[in-house]
Amino acid sequence: MKNLTPMTEDFNQWYTDVIQEAELADYSPVKGSMVIRPYGYAIWENIQKYLDNRFKETGHKNAYFPLLIPKSFIQKEAEHVEGFSPELATVTHAGGKELEEPLIVRPTSETIINYMFSKWISSHRDLPLLINQWANVVRWEMRTRLFLRTSEFLWQEGHTAHETSEEANEEALKMLDIYEEFVQDIAAVAVRKGVKSEIEKFAGATKTYSIEAMMLDKKALQAGTSHELGQNFSKAFEIQFSDKNNKLQHPYQTSWGVSTRLIGMIIMAHGDDKGLKLPPNLAPIQIVVVPIIPNQDDSVLVMNKVEEIDKLLSKHRIEVDDREEVTPGFKFNEWELKGVPIRIEIGPRDIENNKVIISRRDVDGSKIEVSIENLSQKVDELLYEIQNNMFLKSKKHMDENTFHVDSKKELIKTLNNKEGFVTCYWHENEKDEIEIKELTSATIRCYPIDVNDTKKSINQKNKDGCYTIFSKAY
Amino acid sequence: MKNLTPMTEDFNQWYTDVIQEAELADYSPVKGSMVIRPYGYAIWENIQKYLDNRFKETGHKNAYFPLLIPKSFIQKEAEHVEGFSPELATVTHAGGKELEEPLIVRPTSETIINYMFSKWISSHRDLPLLINQWANVVRWEMRTRLFLRTSEFLWQEGHTAHETSEEANEEALKMLDIYEEFVQDIAAVAVRKGVKSEIEKFAGATKTYSIEAMMLDKKALQAGTSHELGQNFSKAFEIQFSDKNNKLQHPYQTSWGVSTRLIGMIIMAHGDDKGLKLPPNLAPIQIVVVPIIPNQDDSVLVMNKVEEIDKLLSKHRIEVDDREEVTPGFKFNEWELKGVPIRIEIGPRDIENNKVIISRRDVDGSKIEVSIENLSQKVDELLYEIQNNMFLKSKKHMDENTFHVDSKKELIKTLNNKEGFVTCYWHENEKDEIEIKELTSATIRCYPIDVNDTKKSINQKNKDGCYTIFSKAY
Repeated sequence: MKNLTPMTEDFNQWYTDVIQEAELADYSPVKGSMVIRPYGYAIWENIQKYLDNRFKETGHKNAYFPLLIPKSFIQKEAEHVEGFSPELATVTHAGGKELEEPLIVRPTSETIINYMFSKWISSHRDLPLLINQWANVVRWEMRTRLFLRTSEFLWQEGHTAHETSEEANEEALKMLDIYEEFVQDIAAVAVRKGVKSEIEKFAGATKTYSIEAMMLDKKALQAGTSHELGQNFSKAFEIQFSDKNNKLQHPYQTSWGVSTRLIGMIIMAHGDDKGLKLPPNLAPIQIVVVPIIPNQDDSVLVMNKVEEIDKLLSKHRIEVDDREEVTPGFKFNEWELKGVPIRIEIGPRDIENNKVIISRRDVDGSKIEVSIENLSQKVDELLYEIQNNMFLKSKKHMDENTFHVDSKKELIKTLNNKEGFVTCYWHENEKDEIEIKELTSATIRCYPIDVNDTKKSINQKNKDGCYTIFSKAY
Repeated sequence: MKNLTPMTEDFNQWYTDVIQEAELADYSPVKGSMVIRPYGYAIWENIQKYLDNRFKETGHKNAYFPLLIPKSFIQKEAEHVEGFSPELATVTHAGGKELEEPLIVRPTSETIINYMFSKWISSHRDLPLLINQWANVVRWEMRTRLFLRTSEFLWQEGHTAHETSEEANEEALKMLDIYEEFVQDIAAVAVRKGVKSEIEKFAGATKTYSIEAMMLDKKALQAGTSHELGQNFSKAFEIQFSDKNNKLQHPYQTSWGVSTRLIGMIIMAHGDDKGLKLPPNLAPIQIVVVPIIPNQDDSVLVMNKVEEIDKLLSKHRIEVDDREEVTPGFKFNEWELKGVPIRIEIGPRDIENNKVIISRRDVDGSKIEVSIENLSQKVDELLYEIQNNMFLKSKKHMDENTFHVDSKKELIKTLNNKEGFVTCYWHENEKDEIEIKELTSATIRCYPIDVNDTKKSINQKNKDGCYTIFSKAY
C-alpha cells in the first residue's frame, strides 16, 4: 500500500490520496468528472437512507423529472440564467439530427419542475406541494476536486410550493434543520447555521440559508443549502392557484439540496495521517474482525470463534477479513485507512482467556481487552461513544478556531494570519464584502441565525451590523 | 374525474389514460421524455428496494459512473456502436466552449465501466468483480410511449467480470433468475425465460437472455435482459488479469438490466376498465381506509375507530382518506383507479356491529364483512391471497393464449389471426426470421430455456429446431 501524504505536510494531497487509496472514488477519463467506487457509494447510500426517511416523515414525496431541459426554460428567470450560464453543458444533436432547440443537461431543476408545477397546481387544495428528486446534475467546472467540485455530481433537490410566504419560510428552515441534524448527529460534524449574503445566495432565490462546517485545515465547507424562492419562479412559470376566496395567487416556493460533496466533508472533517475516520452512524462497515492465526493448527479454533462473534454482533454492519494472502498488520493498516470505527482481533490466546481485543479508530493506539460475555454490550457502548466523541471533537475544533474581531482592520489581519472562522458585526454591503474577499480571499459564510442581536458594524460608520462569519472556504 | 377509455375499445388509449388519471406519469415539454410523478415513482422505489437487496445478497456492490462518455469510447466495440448510433444524444458545448471531443449522454455504460475495469483489474484476486449502477440513460426514440419507450429512462445496469466463460454464464443466468423471481413473485406477472435470437440480441453481447411477459392485449413485453458479453469488451478495453499460473487473460463479462419499463408492464398485465390493479407486494398503498360519515354527529365515533384500525394495521402500507370535500363514492372510484389492493369502509352501523367492510381490487364487486377482532389476520390472508391470485390469473392468461404450430404456414396464419404467443420448433435463421416479421410483424421473443428438446424445424428442411416463442411485442 502506498503511503499517504501526511495531512500536516499537504492537506490537499492527503485528501486526494485518501480518496484513491481507500477506494472511495477515482478519476474518470472525462475531464472533471469522477467515478464513485463501491466504498464511497456505500457512504452515499447511508446518507440517502437517512435523509430520504426524514424527507418522507416530513411529508415530501419523491418524483423524477427530465435530465434535458429546453434552453428557453433556463432563460426564464433572469438571475437564474445569469448564475448558471457559464456552467452549462448543451446537447445540440440527438438521434442523428441537429435539434431545433438545444437542450441543457440540468444544472438544477427549478425550471423544469416549476413548469410541471404550473400544470399540477390550480387550487389551494393542491398546496403545499412537497416534492423531492434524487438525481445527477452537471455543472461544467474549470477547477475540479473529487467529491467537492466535479462536472457531474449526485444530489437531492427538494422543490415545494406554498400558499403563503410564512409557510415557505417555515419549510426552508425545517429542511435546514434536517440537514443540520444529519450533519451533526449522523456525520458527526459541527456546523453553524445561517443566512447567506446577497452575493453568495442562490441565483434566483430571495433568501438562501446554509449550514457551514469547519474542515481539519480550518477552512469552511458549505454542507447544505435551503432557499426561499419567493414568487420568482412561480411568476416566471405562471404557476397560479385559486385561494380560499377564489382569487388567483402565485404560490411561494422553496428549494433545498445536499450532494455527494457531503462525502468530501466527512473525509476532511475527521481523518488523520492513517486515513479516513468514519462515524459509526454512516460507516458502511462499523466493525471489522481480524482473525490472528500464528500457527496453522489454530485455524479451525480461531475461525469458529470468529464466526461466533460475527453472529453475535450481526445487528451491526460487521465484516470478517479472512484473507489468507496478507498479514494481520497489513489488514490493520487497510481498515484504518478505510476508517472502520471498531476493529476486533481474535487469536488463540484470546480465545483461551475468553477475550477479544478491541481497537477504536477515533482514539489513536487504543487497545482494550473485552470478555466475550460483555462483548455485545461493550460494542453498543463503544459505537455510541465513538459517534459522540467524533462530534465533540469536531465541535471543539470549530469553537477553538473561531475568532471574534471588533474592527475591519482586525478582520483583514486575522483572516490573513489565521485559518478559521472570524466573526464580527457586519452591515450587509456588497462593495465592502468584495473588498474583504480581494484582500483575504475569505467570504461571508453566513449570518448565523442563532445570534439575534445587532451591534455597531465594523464596516459602515454609524450603521448597525449582524453577527457574521467570515472564512476561506472550499 | 375523467372516464377512462375502456380497455376493450382501445387498449393503447386506456394505457395512456390510466397513467395520466392515476398520476403515475406526465408528458414533459421535452419531446419523448416523461415526468415520473410521486405515485409512479413510489412503485419504482419498491422495485428498487427489492432488487437492490437481492443484488447485494448475491455479492454485488453499487457504484456510480459518469453520465457523459467520450464519443471514441462508444466506437470501440464494433457491434455496440452500430446498435446504438441512431439513438445517441450528443453534448457538443460545455462551459461556454465547443468541446474538443463530443460527449455522448450514456445510452448504457458498458464502455465507460469497462474502461474503469481495465484500471481496477490486474489479478485473478480482483475477480469476480460484481458491480451494479442505478442510473438514468438516454436513447433518442422517434416513437415514444410513457414508461415503455422514452428518450430518458431510469434503470439499473449490472456489469461483471469473471475468470472463466462458465462463471460468466452462471452469473448471467443467476441474474435472469432474480429478474424472473421479482416479476413473478413481486409484480405477479407470469413470464417465459429464454435466449434471444441473433437478430434480437444486445449489440455487443455473445448471448442475450430475457424474460418475456404477456400483456392483457396478448402482446409480449420484454421485462428484463441479461447478457453474456464474452471477451468482446474486455478485448476492446484491454482488460487483463494474471491468472493463477501468472498468465495474462481477458476476463469474461456480463451485463444485465431492468428499467422503469417494468411499471408499464405492471399496468398492462393487471388493469381493468376501472384502472390499475397493483399487486400487494409492490403497491405504494396496500390498504386504504374510507370513513363513512352519513351524519356529522357520527364523525368523532367513526374517526376514532378509523384511527384505531390505522394503528392495528400499521405494519402494512396503509392510508386513511379523510378528505371532507369529496364523497365516499368518489373516493372508491379514485382508489380503484389507483389500484389499491384492499379498501376498508367504516361507518356507524359497522362500528355498532363491531365490523368493517372490505373490498378487494382484484375481484370485481367483492365486499365482505369482517369482525374487528379478526381484521388483522384477515388482512394478512387477503394480501397474500390477492398477490397469489393476480399471479395465477396472469399465468392462466399467458397459458391460454399460447398456441403451438407445426408448420411455417400455420405460424404465419396464427400470428396474423390471433394475438398471443405462438410456439414452434425453429431453426435459427436470420432470413427466415425477417420474413416472418415482414409478414406478421411478430418477432422471436426467445428460445425458452425450460424446454430442452429439439425437433424437426418448421422453417429449414431436414434441420432440427429449438422450441421457440413468436409474438408481437411492445
